[in-house]
Amino acid sequence: MSETAFQDEYPDNFSYCYGCGRLNEHGLQIKSYWQGDEAVCVYTPREHHIAIPGFVYGGLIASLIDCHGTGTAAAAAARQAGRPIGSEPPFRFVTASLQVDYLKPTPLGVPLEIRARAVEIKGRKVVVEESLSAGGVVCAHGRVIAVQVPENFVS
Amino acid sequence: MSETAFQDEYPDNFSYCYGCGRLNEHGLQIKSYWQGDEAVCVYTPREHHIAIPGFVYGGLIASLIDCHGTGTAAAAAARQAGRPIGSEPPFRFVTASLQVDYLKPTPLGVPLEIRARAVEIKGRKVVVEESLSAGGVVCAHGRVIAVQVPENFVS
Repeated sequence: MSETAFQDEYPDNFSYCYGCGRLNEHGLQIKSYWQGDEAVCVYTPREHHIAIPGFVYGGLIASLIDCHGTGTAAAAAARQAGRPIGSEPPFRFVTASLQVDYLKPTPLGVPLEIRARAVEIKGRKVVVEESLSAGGVVCAHGRVIAVQVPENFVS
Repeated sequence: MSETAFQDEYPDNFSYCYGCGRLNEHGLQIKSYWQGDEAVCVYTPREHHIAIPGFVYGGLIASLIDCHGTGTAAAAAARQAGRPIGSEPPFRFVTASLQVDYLKPTPLGVPLEIRARAVEIKGRKVVVEESLSAGGVVCAHGRVIAVQVPENFVS
């Protein structure tokens, strides 16, 4: 696994995201790392992140897939460019489209592992495919189309 | 507008959802109502629900579309059956598939209005199309495929 999480390389003004910002104290603060060609994120939902008691809330699953997807997009674009995510100008992506297929109810109480792969990098667009598993069982598939933020969008 | 929110008709054991459960004190507790053939939900994101400062977190938008979608599915199935959502056996739906297209950055600080329409009701499946707007400007489109929970799934 890479040593530094993608999100810990984001510049400060991109680090307030509820899902992945290290500076959002109310948020999920997910962390994503390279493991070969796949990006991996492990997150254990909190007790209140439920849909039906005992099962994880689908909106949380969508949030994990969303932020791990944009993180993977940034890391893949940075890797392709041969420079760090946070180097100038930094790689910052937002979601244009999010698709989640819920294959099975996801049990609460175990860490969830989300594995992602950038399947297309074209200009400012990166397509990321993801799978989310609990205890080794794949419970959801995700697909994120991420677009690089224009440099003048955030000061 | 209908007087009672769909979610306030859910039985107690289906009311702990992080997105829409009236009994989840940490959750969003969204409320959905009929307005003619459309279901409407208004939600004002909290200050920490941000992606980039000033703009709403996409995972929250996905969560709103998810829960308003399953709520609309339950209400549409109940309406078609000619009996209340909470009457026995109650109408309870989960999400099989969620699609969100983010059309514009969604500004923080104003109420978001999500309008939904059940475009297909077939057996235990309901397809819901949604749009989310801020200050009258549509910022996201959503599509939820909701499936009725088997009666023996939740005791």
